[in-house]
Amino acid sequence: MKSQGSTEFTHLDDRGQVRLVDVGDKPVTRRQATALGSIYLGDKIYPLLMSDQLEKGDAFAAARLAGIMAIKNTANLIPLCHPLPLTGIEIDFIPQPEQKSLAIKAQVRTQAQTGVEMEALVGVAVAALTIYDMCKAIDRNMVIEDIMLIDKSGGKSGAYHRPGEDGR
Amino acid sequence: MKSQGSTEFTHLDDRGQVRLVDVGDKPVTRRQATALGSIYLGDKIYPLLMSDQLEKGDAFAAARLAGIMAIKNTANLIPLCHPLPLTGIEIDFIPQPEQKSLAIKAQVRTQAQTGVEMEALVGVAVAALTIYDMCKAIDRNMVIEDIMLIDKSGGKSGAYHRPGEDGR
Amino acid sequence: MKSQGSTEFTHLDDRGQVRLVDVGDKPVTRRQATALGSIYLGDKIYPLLMSDQLEKGDAFAAARLAGIMAIKNTANLIPLCHPLPLTGIEIDFIPQPEQKSLAIKAQVRTQAQTGVEMEALVGVAVAALTIYDMCKAIDRNMVIEDIMLIDKSGGKSGAYHRPGEDGR
Amino acid sequence: MKSQGSTEFTHLDDRGQVRLVDVGDKPVTRRQATALGSIYLGDKIYPLLMSDQLEKGDAFAAARLAGIMAIKNTANLIPLCHPLPLTGIEIDFIPQPEQKSLAIKAQVRTQAQTGVEMEALVGVAVAALTIYDMCKAIDRNMVIEDIMLIDKSGGKSGAYHRPGEDGR
Amino acid sequence: MKSQGSTEFTHLDDRGQVRLVDVGDKPVTRRQATALGSIYLGDKIYPLLMSDQLEKGDAFAAARLAGIMAIKNTANLIPLCHPLPLTGIEIDFIPQPEQKSLAIKAQVRTQAQTGVEMEALVGVAVAALTIYDMCKAIDRNMVIEDIMLIDKSGGKSGAYHRPGEDGR
Amino acid sequence: MKSQGSTEFTHLDDRGQVRLVDVGDKPVTRRQATALGSIYLGDKIYPLLMSDQLEKGDAFAAARLAGIMAIKNTANLIPLCHPLPLTGIEIDFIPQPEQKSLAIKAQVRTQAQTGVEMEALVGVAVAALTIYDMCKAIDRNMVIEDIMLIDKSGGKSGAYHRPGEDGR
Repeated sequence: MKSQGSTEFTHLDDRGQVRLVDVGDKPVTRRQATALGSIYLGDKIYPLLMSDQLEKGDAFAAARLAGIMAIKNTANLIPLCHPLPLTGIEIDFIPQPEQKSLAIKAQVRTQAQTGVEMEALVGVAVAALTIYDMCKAIDRNMVIEDIMLIDKSGGKSGAYHRPGEDGR
Repeated sequence: MKSQGSTEFTHLDDRGQVRLVDVGDKPVTRRQATALGSIYLGDKIYPLLMSDQLEKGDAFAAARLAGIMAIKNTANLIPLCHPLPLTGIEIDFIPQPEQKSLAIKAQVRTQAQTGVEMEALVGVAVAALTIYDMCKAIDRNMVIEDIMLIDKSGGKSGAYHRPGEDGR
Repeated sequence: MKSQGSTEFTHLDDRGQVRLVDVGDKPVTRRQATALGSIYLGDKIYPLLMSDQLEKGDAFAAARLAGIMAIKNTANLIPLCHPLPLTGIEIDFIPQPEQKSLAIKAQVRTQAQTGVEMEALVGVAVAALTIYDMCKAIDRNMVIEDIMLIDKSGGKSGAYHRPGEDGR
Repeated sequence: MKSQGSTEFTHLDDRGQVRLVDVGDKPVTRRQATALGSIYLGDKIYPLLMSDQLEKGDAFAAARLAGIMAIKNTANLIPLCHPLPLTGIEIDFIPQPEQKSLAIKAQVRTQAQTGVEMEALVGVAVAALTIYDMCKAIDRNMVIEDIMLIDKSGGKSGAYHRPGEDGR
Repeated sequence: MKSQGSTEFTHLDDRGQVRLVDVGDKPVTRRQATALGSIYLGDKIYPLLMSDQLEKGDAFAAARLAGIMAIKNTANLIPLCHPLPLTGIEIDFIPQPEQKSLAIKAQVRTQAQTGVEMEALVGVAVAALTIYDMCKAIDRNMVIEDIMLIDKSGGKSGAYHRPGEDGR
Repeated sequence: MKSQGSTEFTHLDDRGQVRLVDVGDKPVTRRQATALGSIYLGDKIYPLLMSDQLEKGDAFAAARLAGIMAIKNTANLIPLCHPLPLTGIEIDFIPQPEQKSLAIKAQVRTQAQTGVEMEALVGVAVAALTIYDMCKAIDRNMVIEDIMLIDKSGGKSGAYHRPGEDGR
């Protein structure tokens, strides 16, 4: 008898064992996914990081690069992700002065048999972690917040748009 | 003229350029760090993931393994982290039925010239992302929340304990 | 003058030099491969590992995950393997109480210009090594045995089915 | 109540959950481990691979290199292995004309808080898999056989020498 | 206002931020690229490396293998390279007795939406670095020289053939 | 009979077989190495890359980051390099307007049983390759030139300072 749960968790077979889900029957389609998250920097770090943003290009560039490289490495990081070709990646930082935080948005595109939601989420997480790393000598009270999927398109399960989000 | 910011951001030199900070003069000491975060699962996923937890050992094991492997790979993931030997890693999941979420705690230990905060934070993030991956076919509204350092000890900068946190 | 051997070893050119064989003229076809192997556990480990199998889900899950991740990483592990997209992976453990051993079966599927035999064999080897690692504190006399290809299909060279094997 | 099994499997905690075992209290000592295994080549491949061995230096070199690189990458391959510095690696091939097989021996040395048995076993497995890959176009009936630890020294658990083995 | 430079640097967007260029609208075509470079060995190393070349098959094989593996890993090494399937790789060494140097040529083929110039250049660089590593105990005055693209074909931007080079 | 060459090539044993040289008897000492190289950009790229350097912080940051990450990954890239802890890394770019080229300098520090020359050379090579990648859409005639060791210190073989070089 199959357990109800197992049929819902596509990465688990009837016995609850992990597998790389077979996507061999799915067509290759254009797909994109956008993820969003933020890192709360606080009163000490926020003004330092933003004050002379031009000069500190390297800080943002390091986080952006780390996110892009992690996205390309998603299948090695998340055990049950399929290795996918990727056709485009963009990572943006959006200062949020009221919250003293930095929003991070990652958009990933592919032409493949499965989607790139995990890639986009990985990109946001690793970019945020890289910002944390570069600022932690100043203040360790930062918090990485609200990493979530904003939208995705392409693929059998259709488009997804997060309720109440406009993608900023 | 040195900018004020650059002297505070230890990963940036006087010109705002990234570098791997020289830790050659720091002593090798025992260090540990604990990070915490959670993933909001929601009404559909939470009961499915928790209902027959024993049977679905693989789901939690996959997330735990992914976190451990990512922790060991931190220096390849976060550009300005030093490659470190690690002496111990533990990742725990704490169900939070009221919030319909799963808390994730990672503890990392080393004997090195620099600390393992980033390793602990990476472990929480990747474990959370792996849970997301395994549940996303059911509901994509999950949110990875509040990844933060709880405490660290060892090293010149002394112990850190997050204000108001008891480490659960 | 070409040596006879070199023409047979497709990874070696006329001068005996390694190369990544050109598969550019081969069509993309559906391919699968199944490999099998086992690890002799012995009298001490076998009952411990099997006694409360449900509770120790993590041990089998760790080996399964390690096998899946290694399969996805085959092209980095085996120097002359082509990097391939993979559409599905399954790893199964079959207890063999008479031999006090654990059989391991890996099945890999792709749609590519070359096959996935090496991926399946890598998966069995790494799953077996992971079991070894988790049990070695109890007894180091384990032996990893008889890793072999059971069958493959798809591709120019046609189907292969190991003589005398039923794939279990 | 702790299960009996869990206390024996050092990689599992009281609840059967995987962890990277804490080796922080173990002293750094010189350690070495030697592993052995073989690949059955059969009547077609054996003479081709051995006939003009000098000329096909690349075939053996490829397998040796692959083994060395995999050994250095053990902590990324086997989930619960500690990342270790390594001080020396040697991989040898021993033709076995009677069995039509090739024995593979890997010796690994370190100065660390834990041993290098897994590294040596990984080296044998990956060298054997690389030989398989280079010969599989000729005959797919090869079998990777009897990968086992021959001896290890250094560390709290003392020296191990496989019963009945002379290390060849 | 867009800066002139940014429009020319395809990896930078209008704000000078790095991105993985979107190649989703480019057709999959057959592509190849050939790169060339050399390593000056000097009077001490050159005769030693060349004198008994047959016997030291492993030295050249190691460099060739390292080049092939690095080529397959280009997307992890060069941050803004797309992960690509590769259909064929060849690396050749051409002794240059007059200059006491070793020329290195790498040819890479794919069927993809973007080209493999970086892969070929990476292969030459890493093969040269590996030769350097194996010879540095003899003499550290080696110099890696003139790594450049010789030709490429396939893709929208058309064929490239380096002016004045015949590809040797 | 041992060949003369093999005794000089420390990575090759008496039979010309590659090995990871045993450094277990060498003391842990502070070591540093500096490497230098350059990339010829030419008349089209040089002014574009230099004209508004501030704005294009990301281009230089990407190359610097890629170099730092490759340095940390040297033991996976160069087959016979030992995995080492690294205590500090700096990569600098020095515009050379007369030659229309960009010089790249990498300095690496460690406390280990063997040196970091290869790490420094890898850093220069990968930073140069990353610059090439970002500029290649403008002009493919760039040439990566003269990658060499400038100086090293620490270790049994003593300090090395390249004849005629002042390290710029």
